[in-house]
Amino acid sequence: MNRFIEKLTQAQRKNNSLICVGLDSDLDRIPAHLKGSGDPVLEFNKAIINATRNICCAYKPNLAFYEALGLRGLETLKKTIRHVPEEIPVILDAKRGDIGNTARKYAEGIFAELGGDAVTLSPYLGFDSIAPFLEYKDKFAYVLAVTSNKSATDFQYLDCDGKPLYLHVVEKVRSWNQDENLGLVVGASQPQQIREIRQAAPELPFLIPGVGAQGGDLGKAVTYGTADGGIITINVSRGVIFASDGEDFAEKAAEALTQFNNRTNVVG
Amino acid sequence: MNRFIEKLTQAQRKNNSLICVGLDSDLDRIPAHLKGSGDPVLEFNKAIINATRNICCAYKPNLAFYEALGLRGLETLKKTIRHVPEEIPVILDAKRGDIGNTARKYAEGIFAELGGDAVTLSPYLGFDSIAPFLEYKDKFAYVLAVTSNKSATDFQYLDCDGKPLYLHVVEKVRSWNQDENLGLVVGASQPQQIREIRQAAPELPFLIPGVGAQGGDLGKAVTYGTADGGIITINVSRGVIFASDGEDFAEKAAEALTQFNNRTNVVG
Repeated sequence: MNRFIEKLTQAQRKNNSLICVGLDSDLDRIPAHLKGSGDPVLEFNKAIINATRNICCAYKPNLAFYEALGLRGLETLKKTIRHVPEEIPVILDAKRGDIGNTARKYAEGIFAELGGDAVTLSPYLGFDSIAPFLEYKDKFAYVLAVTSNKSATDFQYLDCDGKPLYLHVVEKVRSWNQDENLGLVVGASQPQQIREIRQAAPELPFLIPGVGAQGGDLGKAVTYGTADGGIITINVSRGVIFASDGEDFAEKAAEALTQFNNRTNVVG
Repeated sequence: MNRFIEKLTQAQRKNNSLICVGLDSDLDRIPAHLKGSGDPVLEFNKAIINATRNICCAYKPNLAFYEALGLRGLETLKKTIRHVPEEIPVILDAKRGDIGNTARKYAEGIFAELGGDAVTLSPYLGFDSIAPFLEYKDKFAYVLAVTSNKSATDFQYLDCDGKPLYLHVVEKVRSWNQDENLGLVVGASQPQQIREIRQAAPELPFLIPGVGAQGGDLGKAVTYGTADGGIITINVSRGVIFASDGEDFAEKAAEALTQFNNRTNVVG
C-alpha cells in the first residue's frame, strides 16, 4: 500500500475521523489577539493543530494563503508542516499543472523542498503534467475531477464524446495509476457525482472538499464515497478553523471538528 | 488599452521583437562557472536580462523553477523581477487555478507580493477561479487554451458538444473579458490551432509557447497569430537561455534571440 494512504488510513482509525483540516489560514481572518505576534499565521496554525491532532486524519494547507504573504508566508508554511505530528499526513493543496520539465520542478518543490505527503494537481495539460509526481512512489497526488465551486460547470460538466469531461479525467487517472499513488478530488456540492465517480473508480482514494462553508451534503458524501470500501477523506477548512474569531478559536475549532466527526461517523 | 498590453506592444516596437524570454532558469542547467556564486540563478538571470533587454519584448519566469529552490528561490525570483527594466513587462507563468476565495490569494501573491505584470492561469475550475485576477485592471491574465506538450491532446482536444474543449475555453474567455485584461495561451506545436483560435478570437492577445526546444513552427505561429492585427508574443525559454553552457552563455543567448527575431520579423 502507498505510504501516504497507509498513514492516512491509520490516522483515520486511530483518531476515528475522516476529516482533513484545511489550513486555509487567511491572515485577514486570524483572531485579532494573535495579530501582535511575530508570526500570527504560524501561531494560529500551531494552536489549531495542537487542538485537533487527535481528532482528524490529515492537514491540508492551501498554498495560495501562504504565497500571498511572500517569503514570510513560505517560511510559515514550512514551519507549519514541521509542526504536524509525524503520524498525520499533510496534503499540499497546490492544484499545479504544467509541461513535463516544469512539472518535475513543481514536484521537487512540493515533495522534496516543502515536504508534503500528498499534493493536488490540475488535469488540463494531461499525462505529462502528472507523470513527474508519480515518480515519488511514497507520495500521492489527487487530480481534480469535480471541484466544489459554482463555476465547476463551465468546463467540467461539458458533454465530451457522450460523457462529462470529469469522467474522462477519472478514466485517464485510472489508466495512469500504475503505482497506486493517484486519487481524485471530487467536490461534495453535487453528491450525485460522488456516487457516479465511485462506481467508475472503486479503487481510487477521494479527497472531498466543499462540505463546510461551501454547503455540500456531508452524509451523502460519506455514504457514496465509502461505498464498496472506498477510501475517502473529507476536507473542511473555514468550517473548522474559523469556528470562532475569539481567544477560544482553537477550542471552538476542535468542537466544530468533533461535530463533523460525529455527523460523519453516524453516517459511515 | 490595458497597461500590460500597452507596455508589451511598446516594447515590441522599440526592440523590434515579438519574443518573450522564458526565464526557466533550472539550477541544474546553469553554467558551471556560476555555481560558486552566492546566488547562481540570480547571477544567470541578471546576465541574460542585461544581454537581451533591448532585443526582446517580455520576460516570463516560470514559478516552478524558483519554488523548487524553496525560500531562496522565491528571493531569487523577486530580485530577478526587480532587475527587469521598467519598460519591459514580466509575465509570471504560474498556471494557477483554484476556487474564488483561494484564487483571490493567488492573485495577491502574483500581482501584489511578487509584482508581475501578467500571469498564466488554468481554466479547469471556470470563471470564479479567474475573476479575482480580473479585478486587477492594470494587470493581465493569459488563460491556457491549447498547450504545447504532447499530452495536451488528453483533454484539450476532446470533442465537447461538437467542438474541441479548447474552443469552449476560447469562447468563455471572450465572454469574461469585460475589462480587456484577458488573453490566451496557444501552443505552437499545432499551428492549425493558432489559425483556428485567431479566427474565433480576433481581439484576444496570445502567448505562444512551444517554438524553441519544443519544436513548433515559428513562421506559421507568427503568420496565423498576427492575422487581422492580432497581438501575440512568442515565448522561447531553453532555446535562448541555454544556447551555451559556457562562459559565453549570455552572449550566445542574445545571438539565439536575434536569430528568433530575424526569423519572426521576416515572416511578420
